[in-house]
Amino acid sequence: MPTVFVNVHLKSEILDPQGRAIQGALGRFGVNTVSNVRQGKQFVLTFDKTLTDDQLTEINKVAETLLSNPVIEDYSIEVKNES
Amino acid sequence: MPTVFVNVHLKSEILDPQGRAIQGALGRFGVNTVSNVRQGKQFVLTFDKTLTDDQLTEINKVAETLLSNPVIEDYSIEVKNES
Repeated sequence: MPTVFVNVHLKSEILDPQGRAIQGALGRFGVNTVSNVRQGKQFVLTFDKTLTDDQLTEINKVAETLLSNPVIEDYSIEVKNES
Repeated sequence: MPTVFVNVHLKSEILDPQGRAIQGALGRFGVNTVSNVRQGKQFVLTFDKTLTDDQLTEINKVAETLLSNPVIEDYSIEVKNES
């Protein structure tokens, strides 16, 4: 069953206040070498059947229109084929 | 520079209404073979230096206490060492 991970993050030029807050908090946990933290969303889509190329194109379209806002966000797609 | 990805998702036994809504919407995009959708969070931590084992233990602690709620959420950690 293939699993598709769609990761959506604010574009790097857009300020991410939540990421900044986490970065500040990490120091209090003794993690001082962190240079940047970004918070985003991860969608995990599980499929019944192997994906066709057409379906992958559709999933890209879904990621761009339904799952992210292309004005302020970037997305990446990872496909894992597990048995 | 190592990058640490912390993925946080609701435990599988907890209802994920947002994932359910996306699953419904996918049908309208022609993606009909999806059996499950879960929405979660992804934190991307970029580090200046190679991580020591102690730091990885700290990051695990941070993921469990700061970035997730272990009562209702599961987390996974991925480390990518990029040049």
